[in-house]
Amino acid sequence: MTTARQDLDLCAALARQLRADSIRCSTAAGSGHPTSSLSAADLMAVLLARHLQYDWSNAANPANDHLIFSKGHASPLCYALFRAAGAITDAELMTYRKLGSRLEGHPTPVLPWVDVATGSLGQGLPIAVGEALAGKRLLGAPWHVWTLTGDSELAEGSIWEGLDHAGHERLANFTAIFDVNRLGQRGPTEYEWRVEVYAARVQAFGCEPIVIDGHDLAAIDDAFARARAADRPTVIVAKTIKGKGVSLVENKEGWHGKALDPQQAAAALEELHAEPSRTYPTLKPNVWHPRATDPHRKPAWKTYAEPLATRKAYGEALEALGAARPDVVVLDGEVSNSTHAEDFKKTAPDRFFEMYIAEQQMVATAVGMQVVGFVPFASTFAAFMSRAYDFIRMAAISRANLRLCGSHAGVSIGEDGPSQMALEDLAMMRAVHGSTVFYPCDANQTARLVGLMVELPGISYLRTTREKTPILYKDRLDDFRVGGSRLVRGGNRDDAVAVIAAGITVHEAIAAADELRNELRVRVLDAYCVKPIDTEAVLEALRATGGRLCVVEDHWAEGGLGDAVLAALSEGGVIHELRAYAHLAVRAMPASGKPAELLDAAGISAGHVARAVRTLAGERPVARRA
Amino acid sequence: MTTARQDLDLCAALARQLRADSIRCSTAAGSGHPTSSLSAADLMAVLLARHLQYDWSNAANPANDHLIFSKGHASPLCYALFRAAGAITDAELMTYRKLGSRLEGHPTPVLPWVDVATGSLGQGLPIAVGEALAGKRLLGAPWHVWTLTGDSELAEGSIWEGLDHAGHERLANFTAIFDVNRLGQRGPTEYEWRVEVYAARVQAFGCEPIVIDGHDLAAIDDAFARARAADRPTVIVAKTIKGKGVSLVENKEGWHGKALDPQQAAAALEELHAEPSRTYPTLKPNVWHPRATDPHRKPAWKTYAEPLATRKAYGEALEALGAARPDVVVLDGEVSNSTHAEDFKKTAPDRFFEMYIAEQQMVATAVGMQVVGFVPFASTFAAFMSRAYDFIRMAAISRANLRLCGSHAGVSIGEDGPSQMALEDLAMMRAVHGSTVFYPCDANQTARLVGLMVELPGISYLRTTREKTPILYKDRLDDFRVGGSRLVRGGNRDDAVAVIAAGITVHEAIAAADELRNELRVRVLDAYCVKPIDTEAVLEALRATGGRLCVVEDHWAEGGLGDAVLAALSEGGVIHELRAYAHLAVRAMPASGKPAELLDAAGISAGHVARAVRTLAGERPVARRA
Repeated sequence: MTTARQDLDLCAALARQLRADSIRCSTAAGSGHPTSSLSAADLMAVLLARHLQYDWSNAANPANDHLIFSKGHASPLCYALFRAAGAITDAELMTYRKLGSRLEGHPTPVLPWVDVATGSLGQGLPIAVGEALAGKRLLGAPWHVWTLTGDSELAEGSIWEGLDHAGHERLANFTAIFDVNRLGQRGPTEYEWRVEVYAARVQAFGCEPIVIDGHDLAAIDDAFARARAADRPTVIVAKTIKGKGVSLVENKEGWHGKALDPQQAAAALEELHAEPSRTYPTLKPNVWHPRATDPHRKPAWKTYAEPLATRKAYGEALEALGAARPDVVVLDGEVSNSTHAEDFKKTAPDRFFEMYIAEQQMVATAVGMQVVGFVPFASTFAAFMSRAYDFIRMAAISRANLRLCGSHAGVSIGEDGPSQMALEDLAMMRAVHGSTVFYPCDANQTARLVGLMVELPGISYLRTTREKTPILYKDRLDDFRVGGSRLVRGGNRDDAVAVIAAGITVHEAIAAADELRNELRVRVLDAYCVKPIDTEAVLEALRATGGRLCVVEDHWAEGGLGDAVLAALSEGGVIHELRAYAHLAVRAMPASGKPAELLDAAGISAGHVARAVRTLAGERPVARRA
Repeated sequence: MTTARQDLDLCAALARQLRADSIRCSTAAGSGHPTSSLSAADLMAVLLARHLQYDWSNAANPANDHLIFSKGHASPLCYALFRAAGAITDAELMTYRKLGSRLEGHPTPVLPWVDVATGSLGQGLPIAVGEALAGKRLLGAPWHVWTLTGDSELAEGSIWEGLDHAGHERLANFTAIFDVNRLGQRGPTEYEWRVEVYAARVQAFGCEPIVIDGHDLAAIDDAFARARAADRPTVIVAKTIKGKGVSLVENKEGWHGKALDPQQAAAALEELHAEPSRTYPTLKPNVWHPRATDPHRKPAWKTYAEPLATRKAYGEALEALGAARPDVVVLDGEVSNSTHAEDFKKTAPDRFFEMYIAEQQMVATAVGMQVVGFVPFASTFAAFMSRAYDFIRMAAISRANLRLCGSHAGVSIGEDGPSQMALEDLAMMRAVHGSTVFYPCDANQTARLVGLMVELPGISYLRTTREKTPILYKDRLDDFRVGGSRLVRGGNRDDAVAVIAAGITVHEAIAAADELRNELRVRVLDAYCVKPIDTEAVLEALRATGGRLCVVEDHWAEGGLGDAVLAALSEGGVIHELRAYAHLAVRAMPASGKPAELLDAAGISAGHVARAVRTLAGERPVARRA
């Protein structure tokens, strides 16, 4: 295929403009990454002018291609592209990186043409894989997913998780563009311009490599055409020059993430023969709408009378959702027979995605799928959610609606030992912006919390337990809510002590209360919503007991339920009424043993709760480790 | 090379014993992963009998080879190996997974022959790469590093980060053994027995693949010999059968992580022709000691009078350490000109390790290097430490001594935007067992905290700031300590309000105190040690002010300094004296802007502190968001 001369001339003019605008906006900002933008300007010019099928007047057009800047620091180029497409004005372009501007230092979905936030390298590509997977397997969509990837980020394992999945799922609608400009932030990359190394890896991971000179417009044009026509995922491995087009910075070290000063910028614009920026013609997609799905129905939650693990109830809730909600998708990290996410397959096998042991790719795929309208639930052992923490953090910046479930929380898992015990997940998930953190203690409650999660914006997290737990809730099952809690023992104005617990420790607290029944009035609060915690109920527990609280949790002492309770009391302005407080949490490294043995060894069993309560019932304030 | 018949017979007998013991101990425990052990029994038998050079009477012998079970769930096989080597008795083997036993569900360094905890898949191999890197580049050691890797964990990107580094560094002393038994936890792996897929990937990542039948003893023997003799890293891709040797479970789904019941076990032992377990001869290493290093000297910390970013002070402290401490190594994730870890190269270029943008591999390498006696410091942007959270969590279980530094904390980084801002790192690092969390506010303090970190056991974390900050500390520079704090304003018994801050907000708090100078006596406490926090100083601040505290931090409201302060008050048994409290923290998603603008927009600038202090100085208790 040969490209007409005039088409290439247009691309060349556009590339000049993209370079000039990348320099102009970053120089105005006094910061940013112009040289990382310049290396990819030819690639993006050809993509925008001749291959990207995108309705710039309607970012919500379901037929639009998707473009993710995995190298988010090339935001000047990204915004220059938006300006060339007519999506933003020149005036807005010049607000880059200023307070109040939509044009942040790294792209975020504050801009309607940005699918997801990038800037933590190695994430855009995996998310693009998730979009492509949804496009192929769920939507049968005509659109193509393109992602511009830096060469520095090829050192991230997550890139290879992404390409592995793209290859394994044979995602022909996926194209990554490796901008191999040889220079990272602090110097040469691991493999510099050895594009053959990347090509061999791409091939070995099941994708088709297309190696080109990333400044040869005809070669680029040809590569994009081949990529769109290929029957498997493609990776355009483009050898490029950082700072290309501006001799001051071209292929020079020491120019990463540095704006040109105004004088340098003026010289650069002259060297580029920059003309006033204008809007370029682009390609609209053909009209396409996803096929209408079945209407939503009310999920038929099971109700339970016999002990069941909350992880099993999670699976069965997904099963109910599968039948009722055609937009729900479920992903799992090769442990679906443990998290019980596999139950979803009973009602919606086509919407279950096996992500194998690749937690980063699992979360990335979920993020990508919610971009194109799905409602993802992703699960693994709660301990292994820590593997994807950077992806979860970034998902919050992406304003993603994401539902995560971590099973096998705490020492109560027993024999498998500490590597499998999540003891930091509450801390981790509380510190995610806008998150909701649930920790159910019985099967009926679990089902209803899953029901809440379906509708929740932002990132929600459900912590489930390995062991069977008794059924506590047989009525008022519609009462569970975000920011809620439930009284399971006591509730009088003259309770002696209140125990605040969640999940497995609710049962320990109940056993303690029952043991003390003839001795003390013990209130037990099931704080199933750890964030936002039920401040009202915590305050009420404080007042009813004259300020005697015990928090017991199967989690490290830091960042979990205890911290949440104290924060609630302080926010409520009544923390000075907390006269006696005990915080039972895991404080020593656990080992293996039976669940009951480990709960006891960690000091969070019923016996320990009872002892703490007895102490708290005395007059004097107690120290924390009661 | 052909192996003598009698040698292979010995290996076969040993393999039978390893299988029998794997079944015996897991059946006694009632849980565990016998089938995952059986697939690798032949591999490990040949390794133990004929290739592993290990002094089982002295795990601390520096000449010992290293063996890491990356597939930690094959712990029955690991412990059976120890029993065959005579390291543990048969009686101890039978304590597997019981409370109080050293033989936990997944191996931990509670056992002297275990280098690191495994059980979170995809971590053992990267850590083995770190050991090999230290062996080659730092020690010139004769030992070889072996790691047994499952095929399920090959889906983890971290495996490919590891092999990438092994290949790039040409670590001929490294051998991974891929136990390709085709079956994961819940069913077939992504590529089942397509060993050619793995071999191509290994090759593309710069390592030498050796594909064998993992049950052919002669082929195994030959492969290990080739691996040890190779001039580059090797990966033995062994096609194996899960449950091999026991027809009930051989190559069967549904047998992952499940012990045989006693009757099934008895039949299995009969099928295996199991004999009473015995100790086998093993190979000792030749005598070798690392060359003596220069004695430790007292580091010559710089002292500063002019404003300097704490990240720069970190770099210069490393520079001082490089000259004084021959055991210190520094690793960085391709941002050493931002974290300033690059300054270490000025004094110790051979002990600086560029890990490129592979944070998981960076932490894994650090963990591996501390196993063989080095004192690692590893750095990247604090936000990207979240990428390695699972590795940090596991490092705590490994009882690793690890020093981490995260730069560019909080909104105060300015224009780069939220993807680069760490706002959850304090929460994340507080919830690491036994961790120490430092957050300095000036350059002199930073140097001294780095000095403390060198000597600290466990995992310590230093949070540094992008922007220059004024020098606060010109004297008593030896006073900084774990669990310490410093008063920087006020300190009288009649202070009106105390502001507790750390890092960048110390300067905001000081500005507020100075602004209010003629109006109110404001105490400002620099809580540079966030964990363990200086409980005494917090209590003193409480008492001096009649219970009026303001906490201000450049971090999400959850899990950081605020939570730490409230936990300290509760632990001190005096939280009821907290009559008026304000917690200024980041509560809305930040964007781009100048540092001062963003501090103000987040409500944590001097102006906001001053307003909160004024409110707190009033009589009535205030709500949290003062």
